[in-house]
Amino acid sequence: MLSLDVHRIGVVRRRDDGRSVLELLPAYAEGLDGLEPGRCVQVLFWMHELSRADRRALRVHPRGDTSLMRLGVFSLRSPMRPNPIGVTEANVLEVRGASVVVEGLDALDGSPIIDIKAACR
Amino acid sequence: MLSLDVHRIGVVRRRDDGRSVLELLPAYAEGLDGLEPGRCVQVLFWMHELSRADRRALRVHPRGDTSLMRLGVFSLRSPMRPNPIGVTEANVLEVRGASVVVEGLDALDGSPIIDIKAACR
Repeated sequence: MLSLDVHRIGVVRRRDDGRSVLELLPAYAEGLDGLEPGRCVQVLFWMHELSRADRRALRVHPRGDTSLMRLGVFSLRSPMRPNPIGVTEANVLEVRGASVVVEGLDALDGSPIIDIKAACR
Repeated sequence: MLSLDVHRIGVVRRRDDGRSVLELLPAYAEGLDGLEPGRCVQVLFWMHELSRADRRALRVHPRGDTSLMRLGVFSLRSPMRPNPIGVTEANVLEVRGASVVVEGLDALDGSPIIDIKAACR
């Protein structure tokens, strides 16, 4: 098993108003240069609430619905998968220092951030 | 710096006909259950040809064009970024054992595969 060297670059903070803040570590603030409100970003984050057992499951019930037959995790978007990296898109509302306020982010509070990319759409 | 424990689950093989094969390690074959030709998948892979220096750059010329001003890597899709994980989509042509033949994959031959997810579109 080859391990890849992936670092946490920040953390997701959910706000009470339903928006989220991508709080990058200060050392990464420069990487936000050029990111403006109105842009859409693709965010990669670590699904930190999964257990080691969740990472071993290769067939799961779609949407956790036990009335449905188990399917392979690579045919689904279930959080249970060998490498629990989530990919979601969000709209940029504000960029200030090392923080980005976004709307529409599908990630839990406290999720470690791995990457932010311009979204294609 | 918090490191996350990400494993290679397979490798990308480019074929002469321009298509690619996602060759998973045999232990992960079961995770392909339910994946059928005609489906679209999102593939996460490691951009293995980047150097350590490429991972440290936080501002780069868009598309490597030095006539353009440098911008932050989080406002671009440049391969140069702290965690060189590529996200691309591809159409499934064939699933056989632990291998998936796909069309449209934007990843170099030999790229370690990190994840395959159903694509939203």
